[in-house]
Amino acid sequence: MSTRIRPIDSIREFDSSERRALSEQLFGALREMSADGPGVSRESYGPGEQEAMELIAEAARDEGLLTSWDEAANLIVELPDARSDVPAIICGSHLDSVPQGGNFDGAAGVIAGLLALIRLKREGQTTSAPVRLMAIRGEESAWFGLCYLGSYSLFGQMTREDLDRTHRSTGKPLRDYMTAAGADIGRIEAGERLLAPENVAAYLELHIEQGPVMVAREVPVGIVTGLRGNVRYNIVRCVGEAGHSGAVPRWLRHDSVLAAADLLHRIDEHWRVLLERGLDMVVTAGIISTDPEEHAMSRIPGECDFSLEIRSQSIETLEAFDELIKAEVRSIEKERGVRFEFSRRSLTEPAVMDQRWIDHLSSCCEEMDIRYEKLPSGAGHDAAVFANGGVPSAMIFVRNEHGSHNPNEAMDMDDFMKGADVLYQSLLEPPL
Amino acid sequence: MSTRIRPIDSIREFDSSERRALSEQLFGALREMSADGPGVSRESYGPGEQEAMELIAEAARDEGLLTSWDEAANLIVELPDARSDVPAIICGSHLDSVPQGGNFDGAAGVIAGLLALIRLKREGQTTSAPVRLMAIRGEESAWFGLCYLGSYSLFGQMTREDLDRTHRSTGKPLRDYMTAAGADIGRIEAGERLLAPENVAAYLELHIEQGPVMVAREVPVGIVTGLRGNVRYNIVRCVGEAGHSGAVPRWLRHDSVLAAADLLHRIDEHWRVLLERGLDMVVTAGIISTDPEEHAMSRIPGECDFSLEIRSQSIETLEAFDELIKAEVRSIEKERGVRFEFSRRSLTEPAVMDQRWIDHLSSCCEEMDIRYEKLPSGAGHDAAVFANGGVPSAMIFVRNEHGSHNPNEAMDMDDFMKGADVLYQSLLEPPL
Repeated sequence: MSTRIRPIDSIREFDSSERRALSEQLFGALREMSADGPGVSRESYGPGEQEAMELIAEAARDEGLLTSWDEAANLIVELPDARSDVPAIICGSHLDSVPQGGNFDGAAGVIAGLLALIRLKREGQTTSAPVRLMAIRGEESAWFGLCYLGSYSLFGQMTREDLDRTHRSTGKPLRDYMTAAGADIGRIEAGERLLAPENVAAYLELHIEQGPVMVAREVPVGIVTGLRGNVRYNIVRCVGEAGHSGAVPRWLRHDSVLAAADLLHRIDEHWRVLLERGLDMVVTAGIISTDPEEHAMSRIPGECDFSLEIRSQSIETLEAFDELIKAEVRSIEKERGVRFEFSRRSLTEPAVMDQRWIDHLSSCCEEMDIRYEKLPSGAGHDAAVFANGGVPSAMIFVRNEHGSHNPNEAMDMDDFMKGADVLYQSLLEPPL
Repeated sequence: MSTRIRPIDSIREFDSSERRALSEQLFGALREMSADGPGVSRESYGPGEQEAMELIAEAARDEGLLTSWDEAANLIVELPDARSDVPAIICGSHLDSVPQGGNFDGAAGVIAGLLALIRLKREGQTTSAPVRLMAIRGEESAWFGLCYLGSYSLFGQMTREDLDRTHRSTGKPLRDYMTAAGADIGRIEAGERLLAPENVAAYLELHIEQGPVMVAREVPVGIVTGLRGNVRYNIVRCVGEAGHSGAVPRWLRHDSVLAAADLLHRIDEHWRVLLERGLDMVVTAGIISTDPEEHAMSRIPGECDFSLEIRSQSIETLEAFDELIKAEVRSIEKERGVRFEFSRRSLTEPAVMDQRWIDHLSSCCEEMDIRYEKLPSGAGHDAAVFANGGVPSAMIFVRNEHGSHNPNEAMDMDDFMKGADVLYQSLLEPPL
C-alpha cells in the first residue's frame, strides 16, 4: 500500500516535544479530574468515565478532528476527510479505571490513538485505510462485575442478565447507566451486532503491561502475541478423613492438606517441564484453606479447599493441562485414599493476535531502532473481544512498573512516546 | 518375686462373668450419670468427675476395699491390709471426659484397676508390691486449657498461672474448682512434690487406643512402647509476592502457596523415607490458609500460613526432623524467592515406657494366649507425667473404633476384659 503525501503548504509539524507536552497535559488533566485518594476512580458508564471521554473529544475537536458517539456510547474520533466506504483501522482502548486505580491503564491507549490522528492530520499523511480512534466504555469488571461492556455491546454479546447487573455501590442497574450515557439499550439488549467485522480492517490497542516481564527484560515496547484464555475452578475440595494428629500412623491417614500439597506440587512440576518445551502457560492456586469450623493444629485435616486457574494463549494447552491435572488427581486419590471434588469449570477462550500485524509491528520497532520483545498478555483486554469477533487485532504494550489496578503503576513517559510512535508508524503502511 | 496364696477358706471367686457384669454395670452407671447429648461430659475437678469418683469409691467400699483422697483430690483405692512401708504399684487412669466425649476414655483404666483390686481381695492373692488404684483428676485439657491437672499436681508441676486458668464456660479459676474438690491448693501452688517417685514401684495405665491402628491390625490388646512427644509451630508463614495471576510468568513469581506445597511435599517424602528406616514419627499440618482479606482466584498468593506438628517417641527424631525441615526451608527460600517465618517452637518431650514392664506385659499376653502388638501412643496420657517424673511406667491399650474425644468411640467388652485380665495378671509377679 502506498502513502500519499499532501501538498507541502498544508503541513504543520506535530513534533515529538509537542506530542509529549500534549500527552502530559492530557494525563495530568485526567488524573486531576478523577483523583480519588492515592489513585483515580473513573466508573464504567459513570460520570468519571464520561468526563474523561469529553476531555479527549474536546482535545480532538481543538485539532479539527471529528467526534461522534456510537450505539454503545463509545467515543469515535476521525479525520474530517475520512473515507467511510472502506474498512477502517480502529485504534482503541478504554477510559474507565478500577476504584482507586492507576491513571495510565486504558487512558494510555486512547491518548496514543489521539496523538496518531492529530499527527496524521497535522502532517498531512493519508493512509490506505481510514484511521479511527475508539475510546471504549466499561472495560473494567470492578463496577458491574463484568468487563468489556462497551465492546461486548458492539458485538451483540450483552444479555438481559448482564444489563440487569447492579453497580457495586449504588445498586442501580447497568442499563440505567448505559441509557444515561446515550447507548441504544434496545438494540444492545436485542443482541444486535452494532459493528460488522468486515467493516473493520484491524483493531490496534496500546496498553501498559500489567505484569513485570518488560521491566525485568528491560524492553520499553512489547508486541502482544495473544491474550491468554483460562480454565478456572473456583473450588477444588480435597476430602480425606479427620483424625487425631498423634494417634493415626501415616499408613492409616487420609490427610487432605498433604494430598492437596501433593497435587499442587505435581502441577507445578508439570508446568515447569511444559515451559521448558516452549508452551505458554501460568497456573495459580490463589486461595487455599482448611475448614475454620473444624481445623486444629492437632487434628489431621479432613478437608482442604483451593482455587485453581490455568491460563494459556493456546486452547490446546489449556485442555491438555486440565486433562493432566485430572490424571494426577486420579493417581493421588488412589495413592492417598482421598477424593477431589471440582466445582463447575469455567472456560474463557484465548485470543490470538494477527500474525501479519505482529510482524508489521516488529518491523516498525526495528526500523525505529526501538528495543522490543514479543510476549503474551496474561490480562484481558478489549482486543480479545475484537479478535474473537473476527477482527484482525494487535496490541502494543508499554513497560510499566508495579503492575496495574493499583495507584502505584509507573509508566515512564519516554516509554509511552516510543509505544505511541510505533502505533503511528504502523498506521502508515498497514498490512492490509 | 513370689506370690503367696491365702488359706482356702477366705477365697470367694470373682469369675470372668461376674467381672464382666460389674464392668458393664459401672460403665452403664457412669454413662447415665454424665450423659450429655450423644456423649458424656465429666468436667475436670467438676461435679461430673466428682460423681464418677464417688461411684467408683462406693463400688470399692462395697467390696471391702479402702478409699481415700490424696492432696490433689485423686481417689485412692487400696486393699485393707496393704503394706505402706514398701513402694506400691499404682494402677491409674482418669475419670473426666471432654465435652460430649466418649464414656470409655479414662474410665476403662479406672474400672480395670478396680477389677484387679477386687479380684486380688476376693481370690486372696497377695503380691510382692502393694497395688493401689488411683482415679486421677483432670486429664483432659478441654475444660481449663491444660491437661494432666491431677498428676502434674502430684509432681509439683502446677504453677500459679496454671491455677489461675479459667473454666471454658463459667470463667471461674481452676484453683476454686480444685479447692472445692478437696485439693491442698497451698502445697500444689508452692510446687511441692506430693508423691515421691521412690515410693512408687510402677505406674500402670490401661486406656482405650485413640487411633485406628489396633482395629486395622486386628489386635484386641496393645502394649505401649512410648508416648510421643512433639515439636509444634502454631504458624509457619510463607511470604512471597502477590501479583496478577495472568500477567506474571513463572520465572518472576514468588507464589507462597506453591512454595508451601513444595515444603509440605518434601516433608511428606522425608517422612515416608524415615518410616521405611523404622523411625517412629507423624507429621501434621492441620491448618492452612491464604489471607482472606487479600486472596483471590486471579491473584498470585502473597502469603500462606500453616501449622506444623511433628510427633515422635524419640527426642532425637524430633530434633533431627525439625532440622531437616529447616534445611528444606532454606533450599525453597533460595529457589523460589520466598521467606518462611516460624512462630515460637514448642517442645513436649516424649515419654519412654519401662522396658521390663513392656517385656513383662508381652509375656503375660503370650501366657494367656491373647493377640497383642507393641505400639506407640500418639496421644498423651498421665503415664507420661509419671514416666518423666521418674516412675517406671507402662500402658495397656484396648482396641477401640472411631478414635476418642467423640461419642462414637466403640470399645468391645470382650476386648476390655482381655485388657483387664492382662493388667491383673501382670500384677501377680511384677518385674520389680
